[in-house]
Amino acid sequence: MKFEHEMNSPVLVLDEDQSWQLLSHTSHGRVATSVAGLIDIVPVNYGVHNGKLFLRTAPGNKLAAMSINEKIAFEADGILSDEAWSVVVHGSAEVLEHEADIKEARESGVSPWIPTQKDFWIRVNVDSISGRHFQLGEQPEVAE
Amino acid sequence: MKFEHEMNSPVLVLDEDQSWQLLSHTSHGRVATSVAGLIDIVPVNYGVHNGKLFLRTAPGNKLAAMSINEKIAFEADGILSDEAWSVVVHGSAEVLEHEADIKEARESGVSPWIPTQKDFWIRVNVDSISGRHFQLGEQPEVAE
Repeated sequence: MKFEHEMNSPVLVLDEDQSWQLLSHTSHGRVATSVAGLIDIVPVNYGVHNGKLFLRTAPGNKLAAMSINEKIAFEADGILSDEAWSVVVHGSAEVLEHEADIKEARESGVSPWIPTQKDFWIRVNVDSISGRHFQLGEQPEVAE
Repeated sequence: MKFEHEMNSPVLVLDEDQSWQLLSHTSHGRVATSVAGLIDIVPVNYGVHNGKLFLRTAPGNKLAAMSINEKIAFEADGILSDEAWSVVVHGSAEVLEHEADIKEARESGVSPWIPTQKDFWIRVNVDSISGRHFQLGEQPEVAE
């Protein structure tokens, strides 16, 4: 994807389509949760399907402790030598139990980081998605 | 760094020294905050110095809204073709205002993503650090 920055502006705010496109080309992100007042952050693999995020993770992962429809934040990013992007999703996560839901989750193509036979599936129903693209550069010196 | 997994174990729990070492070789992570009940996640550049994390970010960044000693979670990771690692820090973040603190922050070598003359500095006093190393592999099929 090409991103056209306004002159001298190192940050470009992306629209929803651009943000989804960036998410669909990557498979690794992080989920932030706040359960019982304790904030935490967990790396995850994810897949995108029908405007939802799907996660697949192993037993014992902290995400298993989430309540139904727990509010979460999710981030994925990419960094090259002279540019970077970051997409943030806010939504509600639920552990999937019904076969029809798990079938939809499988269609997202998400695979877990580590091999296990008992991993579970999580769907994130998206409330909002936002993204930014950065042109990386040197910090200008403050004039004395 | 070399990580010795026990046979057939795809996950290795790292000790604090290993976790700090991994952090010191990378400069990009994410901070999760929960301010007024709203969970959020922000990409950051960071530096490590004297067992603390230092962040440097632009005005308007959501991190500027943090209270003094706000509890945060921080994550950095790295992914190669057949292995991955993730380090998570829990701690308290504070925006630095005194010159002596900012001097220490500068020694961490942290640089921001984007050029600005008015960025500010944040110190994370670390409560805990943990890390995991993953040997990536195929998901085994469940026997029918």
